[in-house]
Amino acid sequence: MAGRLITIEGIDGAGKSTLAAALEASLARAGTPVVLLREPGGVALSERLRTVVKDPELRVDPAAEALIYAAARAQLVAERLRPLLDEGRWVLLDRFVDSSLAYQGAGRGLGVDTVRAVNALATGGLAPDRTLLLRLDAVTGRARQGVRGEEADRLEREGDDFFATIAAAYDGLAAAEPERFRVLDATAGPDAVLAAALDALADLRT
Amino acid sequence: MAGRLITIEGIDGAGKSTLAAALEASLARAGTPVVLLREPGGVALSERLRTVVKDPELRVDPAAEALIYAAARAQLVAERLRPLLDEGRWVLLDRFVDSSLAYQGAGRGLGVDTVRAVNALATGGLAPDRTLLLRLDAVTGRARQGVRGEEADRLEREGDDFFATIAAAYDGLAAAEPERFRVLDATAGPDAVLAAALDALADLRT
Repeated sequence: MAGRLITIEGIDGAGKSTLAAALEASLARAGTPVVLLREPGGVALSERLRTVVKDPELRVDPAAEALIYAAARAQLVAERLRPLLDEGRWVLLDRFVDSSLAYQGAGRGLGVDTVRAVNALATGGLAPDRTLLLRLDAVTGRARQGVRGEEADRLEREGDDFFATIAAAYDGLAAAEPERFRVLDATAGPDAVLAAALDALADLRT
Repeated sequence: MAGRLITIEGIDGAGKSTLAAALEASLARAGTPVVLLREPGGVALSERLRTVVKDPELRVDPAAEALIYAAARAQLVAERLRPLLDEGRWVLLDRFVDSSLAYQGAGRGLGVDTVRAVNALATGGLAPDRTLLLRLDAVTGRARQGVRGEEADRLEREGDDFFATIAAAYDGLAAAEPERFRVLDATAGPDAVLAAALDALADLRT
């Protein structure tokens, strides 16, 4: 069976990590050879870049931010994703190119097409077989973040308008590629979200 | 007087750092408000990225390499270059976009146009007022590097073919933009190179 690249997208607080872990466990139980990775990270260079881009002491210009995420992505694709997919693995990836299109392209105002062009170099054309978008309004997402009490990074410190822009950008990306995207209601409970995600992947498991 | 951006380019061993220091001293003596910077570096984020991209323990894919250099450049442009130029300073810059076009675009085979597109995001359209290309054949450049006895980084460990490709790429870039480029003979002595460089900048000092 060919490998599959499944990406999980959505605004902060939408429940991506929770779904990713549940999906990994569920697929593994069903005998699917699955690997869970997150962006930015997954390989040594990308983890180093993660610590740099999330360092609250550093001044990071929007263009630099987009390019660092793309660099981390390029290394993950070359060193880890392509080999895993070539081996026939399923890869669950917590954020991928769509995050950069939504956060840096729309949120930071760099332009979705500009950020897409930069990411074409990063991915070498590798695209997800399916993208699960956990859809959530910005206000609920922010409230959930507050409940988690995590230390906010550079992006998470942005205001409600920023997240509303990102949520709208995600909706636009999903509407433009209905074959690749499946939109899930992130306000449902974890079990319901998992069930919807498994349903959204059913046609790939053949 | 408006600020000026002067970039210094050439293969490893061509004498860029030597010329940059001599040029800075000479311009400062003549009363020109000049600042010398190097790439990648010059601001905190870019220095952090420099240590990452030059770490010999890390595996760095060519696309990731190009994107990291572009990210370091984006931050330098936003945080340092534009403010200095706005203040009317002259900035001498040891490497800039042309290095990425030659090393990653041609040398690594990513394509000059692809790397140029990525760098358009990094620079926001900022282009040098003049570029001094220290022209040297690859074999002489390699021999000079050996004499310096420096620890070789990822790029410097490449073979002669790699540097011949880069030298040819620089020649092509200079031929395509004769107004911006001035080609200097890097085999001349330091005083002769400095004199030629000052001559090549004379029309900007008005």
